[in-house]
Amino acid sequence: MESYEILKDLAIILLFAKCFGILARKFKAPQVVGQIIAGLLVGPCVFGWITQTEFITEMAEVGVIILMFSVGLESDLKELLKTGPIAFLIACAGVLVPLVFGSLLYMGFYGVAPWGSENFFKAVFMGTIMTATSVSITVASLQELGKIKSKVGTTIVSAAIIDDVIGIIVLTFVIGFKSPDSNPGMVIVKTIAFFAVAIVGGFLFYKIFLTLDKRYPHTRRIPIIGVAFCFALSYIAERYFGIADITGAYVAGVVLCSISDNEYIKRKVDVSSYMFFGPIFFASIGLKTTFNSMNAKLFTFCICFVIVALLSKIIGCGVISKICKYSLPDSLKIGVGMMTRGEVALIVAQKGLAAGLLTADYFTAVILLILVSSILTPIILKLLYTSDEKKGIVHT
Amino acid sequence: MESYEILKDLAIILLFAKCFGILARKFKAPQVVGQIIAGLLVGPCVFGWITQTEFITEMAEVGVIILMFSVGLESDLKELLKTGPIAFLIACAGVLVPLVFGSLLYMGFYGVAPWGSENFFKAVFMGTIMTATSVSITVASLQELGKIKSKVGTTIVSAAIIDDVIGIIVLTFVIGFKSPDSNPGMVIVKTIAFFAVAIVGGFLFYKIFLTLDKRYPHTRRIPIIGVAFCFALSYIAERYFGIADITGAYVAGVVLCSISDNEYIKRKVDVSSYMFFGPIFFASIGLKTTFNSMNAKLFTFCICFVIVALLSKIIGCGVISKICKYSLPDSLKIGVGMMTRGEVALIVAQKGLAAGLLTADYFTAVILLILVSSILTPIILKLLYTSDEKKGIVHT
Repeated sequence: MESYEILKDLAIILLFAKCFGILARKFKAPQVVGQIIAGLLVGPCVFGWITQTEFITEMAEVGVIILMFSVGLESDLKELLKTGPIAFLIACAGVLVPLVFGSLLYMGFYGVAPWGSENFFKAVFMGTIMTATSVSITVASLQELGKIKSKVGTTIVSAAIIDDVIGIIVLTFVIGFKSPDSNPGMVIVKTIAFFAVAIVGGFLFYKIFLTLDKRYPHTRRIPIIGVAFCFALSYIAERYFGIADITGAYVAGVVLCSISDNEYIKRKVDVSSYMFFGPIFFASIGLKTTFNSMNAKLFTFCICFVIVALLSKIIGCGVISKICKYSLPDSLKIGVGMMTRGEVALIVAQKGLAAGLLTADYFTAVILLILVSSILTPIILKLLYTSDEKKGIVHT
Repeated sequence: MESYEILKDLAIILLFAKCFGILARKFKAPQVVGQIIAGLLVGPCVFGWITQTEFITEMAEVGVIILMFSVGLESDLKELLKTGPIAFLIACAGVLVPLVFGSLLYMGFYGVAPWGSENFFKAVFMGTIMTATSVSITVASLQELGKIKSKVGTTIVSAAIIDDVIGIIVLTFVIGFKSPDSNPGMVIVKTIAFFAVAIVGGFLFYKIFLTLDKRYPHTRRIPIIGVAFCFALSYIAERYFGIADITGAYVAGVVLCSISDNEYIKRKVDVSSYMFFGPIFFASIGLKTTFNSMNAKLFTFCICFVIVALLSKIIGCGVISKICKYSLPDSLKIGVGMMTRGEVALIVAQKGLAAGLLTADYFTAVILLILVSSILTPIILKLLYTSDEKKGIVHT
């Protein structure tokens, strides 16, 4: 491919993502929905003008990292520590319920399998794919709605982060039973080690940035070195600790959220995010989608898979939230906010393919789940908040 | 390669580019020199932490497009039309003198070749590589010095754009003599067609943006659709008219330079440029460099090649500028500003390789030329402007 071909892709993505984003807002839906639909339209599914190239995948990867960094920057450490224990409970329920329901769904379609059999692991794996929330769409919607710093927003983000970690542990356990290479104990040790390193190293970098910020306030070096730190921590998380890179990016944002230039860094990062990386990331979800190799049984399975995946998260997270003394509307918001799935689900599916726990046919189900949840979550969240406003409920 | 590897590359490039940029400024050199040196250090030449991946190449490509778009946005249409004819003369001299001197250099090393012989074409091709100015480094330095809108700045940018076009015509002629596929007449027709399309289409888009700008001033859609327009025009230029994409980007900027939100677009674009794409572009020049397959004769040739390439541009452009009534210091600045070579020289060399007019050994000479000119031009330009300021000369 000639290198200038990327310019065509970028031009089409930016133009369509923006236009459909505006259109989505006209229909009272969040912009990200328009951007995903734009990707669907220009991608192989409809017009086929653009295919998912390596460049777009990598730009999207940078986009989601920057998004999570920005969320971390906006977080409030005190609020985070306060919501932490509850978020942990919500995350546990958000992993457990989909895991069980997903396994049962598979057995419902392909027969009940005895404990430890090949099909049993396949069923459990189907549940595992459903576990990991991808918070980026929810985060973007909450940002648009101005609710990311609310108690519900903070709870969702922290729960999704913890959920990711638990999801990865579950994945490693399930694969660990199939292959002797994976070591579930090691995963737990690595996870603990990562957070230990992140807290110690984070404190050190916080001090460095505090000094930098005092000596050179509002200079370009602050956001640039901040972004470099975010990329470095994301890389280290994934490479050395097996933690998702977006978790590293979020932690990097949290480390810098209390320096006085955090708003300045965020502003600079956000410009690049909405000008380039953001639209590319959301459009790329639509780009990934194709509907080949579809048959009646698979189609029915896909539909059920999506419904079970969405409902199990809403039920799991919502019920625990209610138990933890959130109001019913807020519990529902948390449940809905946690139901988005994204690239992590795809990554899990990919790992299952490599381990022989899944065939490529089921990818359609995963992509459909990502697509439906990405489009529904922002719309439902917006509806929930609007109905609150009509009732005159004030969010803190 | 795992997708998160790009995060490591980005973290290292951003950190080093920024630190060396600051260091360069401490030594009174422009930041871009520091960024190129950072690329040289982290690249295969010294530490070898990063190799030039496809992603970095493409990010750098986007970076140079955005840079040229930003220059176009800053331009002053009246000034541009005023300097146009003189810029054309300067560009002609800037192509002709290096072409002749480059050919003579090759013949000096490898024997005089009779008109029309194999070696004759090889010699002419060596001259052709020297013709195309890559204005991006000069532009970045002039922006840093705050001189991009001066008469000298405008002249250099327009001359470099025209120079590019003439350079491409020369390349097509030279290759045309060797291969029957190329059609020099067609190149001229396409070039004229591009500028005709750009003027008509540009006027149309100018009107569209004028309306957009009036209805939605200072909204995100303006810069995003502006950037999409820039990418589209760059792509169309390269794909359908064989004109360098950076020329298309510059023209897109010129089209939007008179709308009232041009400053707003530029500000948004510049943030992404200095946060991500810019450092990656400049560092990637350093990354490309390796010094393998070197011997004494080739080494001497490389040194002479660089000296001849630099001096012939300074002499060609400088003398014509002086004839066109620029002062001696300004003529020198134009000559120096025109001496930078960049990716276009590499592209020309690549085409020569494909046409059998060049062996890969000579790539070192081209890269050395890019490196030396990229590092020297900003330093010399800064020295020239500083010495002017000491003498109390005011630039308009």
